[in-house]
Amino acid sequence: MPKSSSYSLNSAKIAETTREWLTKRGVETPQIAELVLFLQKDYYPDLTLQECELYVEAVLTKREVQNAILTGIQLDLLAEEGKLLSPLQEMIENDEGLYGCDEILALSIVNVYGSIGFTNFGYVDKLKPGILKHLNDKEDAQCHTFLDDIVGAIAAAASSRIAHRKQAEREGRVGPPID
Amino acid sequence: MPKSSSYSLNSAKIAETTREWLTKRGVETPQIAELVLFLQKDYYPDLTLQECELYVEAVLTKREVQNAILTGIQLDLLAEEGKLLSPLQEMIENDEGLYGCDEILALSIVNVYGSIGFTNFGYVDKLKPGILKHLNDKEDAQCHTFLDDIVGAIAAAASSRIAHRKQAEREGRVGPPID
Amino acid sequence: MPKSSSYSLNSAKIAETTREWLTKRGVETPQIAELVLFLQKDYYPDLTLQECELYVEAVLTKREVQNAILTGIQLDLLAEEGKLLSPLQEMIENDEGLYGCDEILALSIVNVYGSIGFTNFGYVDKLKPGILKHLNDKEDAQCHTFLDDIVGAIAAAASSRIAHRKQAEREGRVGPPID
Amino acid sequence: MPKSSSYSLNSAKIAETTREWLTKRGVETPQIAELVLFLQKDYYPDLTLQECELYVEAVLTKREVQNAILTGIQLDLLAEEGKLLSPLQEMIENDEGLYGCDEILALSIVNVYGSIGFTNFGYVDKLKPGILKHLNDKEDAQCHTFLDDIVGAIAAAASSRIAHRKQAEREGRVGPPID
Repeated sequence: MPKSSSYSLNSAKIAETTREWLTKRGVETPQIAELVLFLQKDYYPDLTLQECELYVEAVLTKREVQNAILTGIQLDLLAEEGKLLSPLQEMIENDEGLYGCDEILALSIVNVYGSIGFTNFGYVDKLKPGILKHLNDKEDAQCHTFLDDIVGAIAAAASSRIAHRKQAEREGRVGPPID
Repeated sequence: MPKSSSYSLNSAKIAETTREWLTKRGVETPQIAELVLFLQKDYYPDLTLQECELYVEAVLTKREVQNAILTGIQLDLLAEEGKLLSPLQEMIENDEGLYGCDEILALSIVNVYGSIGFTNFGYVDKLKPGILKHLNDKEDAQCHTFLDDIVGAIAAAASSRIAHRKQAEREGRVGPPID
Repeated sequence: MPKSSSYSLNSAKIAETTREWLTKRGVETPQIAELVLFLQKDYYPDLTLQECELYVEAVLTKREVQNAILTGIQLDLLAEEGKLLSPLQEMIENDEGLYGCDEILALSIVNVYGSIGFTNFGYVDKLKPGILKHLNDKEDAQCHTFLDDIVGAIAAAASSRIAHRKQAEREGRVGPPID
Repeated sequence: MPKSSSYSLNSAKIAETTREWLTKRGVETPQIAELVLFLQKDYYPDLTLQECELYVEAVLTKREVQNAILTGIQLDLLAEEGKLLSPLQEMIENDEGLYGCDEILALSIVNVYGSIGFTNFGYVDKLKPGILKHLNDKEDAQCHTFLDDIVGAIAAAASSRIAHRKQAEREGRVGPPID
């Protein structure tokens, strides 16, 4: 279709909408930070929930992360409203295990801080601690086929960022900022 | 949301719908086969368009490929109808260069036959020969932000399959079937 | 460097060498099959270790898998013999957590059956059950920085193949062969 | 093997060694910057080679990029010296098209700035402009099976960084720094 002559990318609006959508879907930064703490507390006993929140915030500033979140939540919303075409509608609605596009979007989030996050993603995606258990609870009327994987991926990416930063601190370098 | 008790994955329906959607969106197997021939004719001078069609068909039988096609076309359709939420609607509608989720789905198709297809994907995605030029034509009312990358990815995957099969023939092995 | 005029790819030799190297490094099919059973037994209570072995064998016939295995074990071997250059030598020798190339090769194995295997890879890579615990035991003189991730990836890929095949059986289709 | 008690990651040394190895293998920043200019000059007519060099430098500061470069060049060097085991030695020595691990490492470099770089990677990897043609010249005694893809990937990643930064400038944001 013809590009709109008035179109121009508004990064602030994308960032802001990402936050709003996460909130509307029941996901707040502290809940993702808890997953990060769960993943990292054995390695960094002094790590606090507050610090984890800063790392989660840092992940959420990344454009690739925002784009994947918006796309995934949009598909969840449409599935919930029954507005997707069959058989895609049924696959997403029923969180079909052989679907796989949810994992693909999630991996693009993990990748933002490199391959060292894959393991952490898989681990929380399997165990479903905290907010992930809630998102997978099939009792409510919401569909979180994408969001579930996305939240795990944000926590895994934040964990990678912690690993990079803690190494920088150890070496007395300034390192990547927390936020 | 609760899993429907009557839900069961119907692979035949998914395969069939994938074909129907490609056709409805103006993409036929011979057009993808032409991209494959464009990519491979210098390496295999005897390769025919008909043979390329069989390789394209083989790619289209893969579940991961079908899922990515359905998801991408669904998002294109919804963008066309203005049914996505802002600012995702504007990004997909205007084929925003910094969006990236289209490339992510495309890569999941290329990956079906391994990493050797990445180069071919990038090459046709940049040059836009044949059907890809048509899909990128911003004059008509259709939105092909995802489909454009998907079609290039199918052609790249089919090219990888050719490379594997031709090697098998060279070694006198039966090798993977064409289709 | 000039291509050797006598070079031609010998797929049988690559497949055979892959098996030999796995055996020499202490990894046998039944041990990988145990990881598969660990990952899948809750979903398919009738699954046997013998069946899992067939799925592992199927994964090992894939060229991408063989190439990643050979490359990873080669790097492990060279690190063990102290033949890599510094600081790569020290990173691989000490299984540096921020290295990441081991996870990258592993993901290329998981990808062979699509993105649905990412979760299983991360899960066993974190928990390190069975043979993975042994490979991570830093007491012996061997270096398994790559092999450890590779074995988890083979188990995850075999699990994906099981999921695809069991669905095929459920639908009364012939489906992909076990081996 | 046992972790060395004296081991600690030295990020400065890794960064420095990466530069030294690139130089020793005949790759200097201006040559990669030329690839970036080749890829981006149509979109940003004012872009200078000097500016492209700053973007290349920025890519080279990333740990994931450094690790992939060191690993790839190490394998090239060992293949050149005939020190890899057969048949991996022959595959790398002859730049076997069905090998694929070179593309996998390259993709991990491209991924550093997200999926939007895949297309540019494939395009230069196919066309082989500038330094890439030289690296692919099979007449000299050097083996550049990995380096060739790595250099294209660095150029593609730098191009992605340009796209992100130019957008930030357009929006009047400070955006990611050039270096």
